[in-house]
Amino acid sequence: MERIDGTIKKTTVDFADFKDYDGQVVTIKGYIHRIREMTGFSFVLIRTSKEIIQCVYSPDFSDYRWDDRLIEESCVKITGKVVSSKDAKGNLRYELQIHDIQVLSIPASQLPIVINKKQLDNIQLNTILDLRPISMRNPKERAIFKIQEGIARGFRQFLGQNGFTEIRSPKINFAGAEGGTNVFKLDYFGKQVYLAQSPQLYKQALVGVYERVFEIAPVFRAEHHDTSRHLNEYTSMDFEMGFIESFEDIMNMETGLLKYIMNLLKEEYKEEIDILKANIPEIESIPSIKFMDAKKLIMEKFKYTPQDMKDFDPQEEEMLGKWAKKELNSDFLFVTHYPSIKRPFYTMDDPENPEYTLSFDLLFRGLEITSGGQRVHDYNMQVEKMIKCGTNPEEFETYLMLHKYGAPPHGGLGIGLERLTMHLLGFKNVREATMFPRDINRVTP
Amino acid sequence: MERIDGTIKKTTVDFADFKDYDGQVVTIKGYIHRIREMTGFSFVLIRTSKEIIQCVYSPDFSDYRWDDRLIEESCVKITGKVVSSKDAKGNLRYELQIHDIQVLSIPASQLPIVINKKQLDNIQLNTILDLRPISMRNPKERAIFKIQEGIARGFRQFLGQNGFTEIRSPKINFAGAEGGTNVFKLDYFGKQVYLAQSPQLYKQALVGVYERVFEIAPVFRAEHHDTSRHLNEYTSMDFEMGFIESFEDIMNMETGLLKYIMNLLKEEYKEEIDILKANIPEIESIPSIKFMDAKKLIMEKFKYTPQDMKDFDPQEEEMLGKWAKKELNSDFLFVTHYPSIKRPFYTMDDPENPEYTLSFDLLFRGLEITSGGQRVHDYNMQVEKMIKCGTNPEEFETYLMLHKYGAPPHGGLGIGLERLTMHLLGFKNVREATMFPRDINRVTP
Repeated sequence: MERIDGTIKKTTVDFADFKDYDGQVVTIKGYIHRIREMTGFSFVLIRTSKEIIQCVYSPDFSDYRWDDRLIEESCVKITGKVVSSKDAKGNLRYELQIHDIQVLSIPASQLPIVINKKQLDNIQLNTILDLRPISMRNPKERAIFKIQEGIARGFRQFLGQNGFTEIRSPKINFAGAEGGTNVFKLDYFGKQVYLAQSPQLYKQALVGVYERVFEIAPVFRAEHHDTSRHLNEYTSMDFEMGFIESFEDIMNMETGLLKYIMNLLKEEYKEEIDILKANIPEIESIPSIKFMDAKKLIMEKFKYTPQDMKDFDPQEEEMLGKWAKKELNSDFLFVTHYPSIKRPFYTMDDPENPEYTLSFDLLFRGLEITSGGQRVHDYNMQVEKMIKCGTNPEEFETYLMLHKYGAPPHGGLGIGLERLTMHLLGFKNVREATMFPRDINRVTP
Repeated sequence: MERIDGTIKKTTVDFADFKDYDGQVVTIKGYIHRIREMTGFSFVLIRTSKEIIQCVYSPDFSDYRWDDRLIEESCVKITGKVVSSKDAKGNLRYELQIHDIQVLSIPASQLPIVINKKQLDNIQLNTILDLRPISMRNPKERAIFKIQEGIARGFRQFLGQNGFTEIRSPKINFAGAEGGTNVFKLDYFGKQVYLAQSPQLYKQALVGVYERVFEIAPVFRAEHHDTSRHLNEYTSMDFEMGFIESFEDIMNMETGLLKYIMNLLKEEYKEEIDILKANIPEIESIPSIKFMDAKKLIMEKFKYTPQDMKDFDPQEEEMLGKWAKKELNSDFLFVTHYPSIKRPFYTMDDPENPEYTLSFDLLFRGLEITSGGQRVHDYNMQVEKMIKCGTNPEEFETYLMLHKYGAPPHGGLGIGLERLTMHLLGFKNVREATMFPRDINRVTP
């Protein structure tokens, strides 16, 4: 009887470890990223999951007889000798003198786009997205989603260290979480159900169990308009915490969280930051301004007349971002106490002035990346507020179980992962920071 | 200008740290889990996110004047003195003498079920599920989903340590991944699209980018039958790895992974394991048997006549589970080389006998918890196999980009998180291990 003992064999050497193998014969595996034929020899660049390794092929020292079917994007296993040389600055650089090549696979066709430059030059975003399985092979595209992985990792690690439990709320919902028209309807064995717009109602319910909870999961919005900021499916990073003393506890948790994420990126994603020339913000503390003070500032400092005194338009967010950077030296700005009329029914009104709420948005370089705040926890207050908002409490019977049977003061927030990635990397379109975006015109690939 | 500096204040003391505060005054926050009135004093059990803390209220030493509206499931902040005493066995135990209580919230209603016993006794599963936001407050129910969190954490941590990148595949798909009828259809601005049955096609595509990838995310199956094992939405833990030498690489990775998960549970989820009386398996190595040998064994050892020589029924899986435990002292058993006709189109046939495949299932205590195997990576081979399986390659043009433009030998697997949790904890119904299950009869809460 054969037994599988879980031994994970590593038969290859990472490029980062070549310095320990100088002069020795090692094995690497990867894609042939690029072949550059020179006189008497060729450079063969091998792309692994994390790096490009320069290999040199020459009939002089290679046993392998070059097969002309071996084109770029073939998969190979190469054994060869690590050799070092000094570059112009005197730094040691390593390459591999190919002894032998074992061909693992040969593509059926040449690539339709050039992926082996530093970035995908002169290729339209739509083409990049149409060819995602291929365009992602470009080192810059690859790096974008490593950074995205890092953001989500940081979110999860920091919250895990601070006593949060990871939850899984259902994506097939019996009611739209926050109402509105932008909800996808689904026929579910004859019943009409909805795709989750947010985990809001579930994460609140679970505050009653785990006190602090988080979820990183897809949410769905049937956005009819086609903008550079909106997607119909995106990744929402949500947390909710109970037994708070004030809604500033949530802002403090987010500030700590963002510090942690940015440090993690700087420490563990250096190569990707270099490739993307990303400007990762320094965070000491985040300034906070009240909504109405921000409106005044926009009118006075920027001589701008807002169309809507209850919310910001994108230009106003940009103004606030510029002001925070210039006057307060901060890439981030909390705006608090949004008008009650513009926030969802579960938002806690400010007891000192109920036209405003104990809620906040976080602007990052002039773009809103978070909405959050304290929630109503009292049953009667919540039922009353629902009725005032035109929401039928009977449709939210399960949701109201939390309030009816006891809820602590609590609050939380949501961050759109793709939007944060986009803005952190300086992109103008959220699709650049989404592996497989879904919008009104796109459901492929 | 106020600034939020990210300071996360901890104003309460965990019960586990009471030993360091003996005789001192501390603060705790939580739900009133249970009140037991005695003569001259009351036990007030406080439920926090992780533990039950025994507090003692008496007018003799408590400044607080008991308010009769303060019922179970109220949220409170209590200051009091940590006092220790020895139990019958001479071990120190700690409780809190209540000095003062600050009432944070009082529920609008008494609970409809008793949640403050060790487990939910004599309550039907359907009622437990209907009342999930409340029933989860029971310590045993709470523990189930901490174990589930631990499994997912272990999966993610182990793969992260082994060079896997976390990916996010879209849940709105333009085509059903694996065909079949059990796919939910969605009207997407007039186009018919599908909810993802699995991340299969996406994770394969990304092997061409990151070599090793994983995803933990919801998948959707429009199961028409109502069984104790099936859900219409569940959490799939998937991984895929490139540049494998053989499909046993995948089985080795899974064996290492399961060892890691079980050790993590034993180390970090001790209290939950105790509450649930969970029998966490020891894994040294996992035996492996070929499909046809397993069939022979079923017929010879168990004198059972299989209805289907191409697949196992649940009884056969149970027989194999019993045999593995008794004869091989293993809770797990790999069954390899399933018949080609029963595996999806992307499965690699065994070159030595193409009627069988380089695939496997993993049985855990007689229940299949994983399907996995090597995938076809050659373009022509995949197109040919699709046609043979009655799948139109033109519908899978994007998927086939991987093969057309170069793919390494690769394979992977999927594990249903809820099913594994269920079986690990000895439940008979997967709904017991699902926070908010979705089945043909249930989309609430």
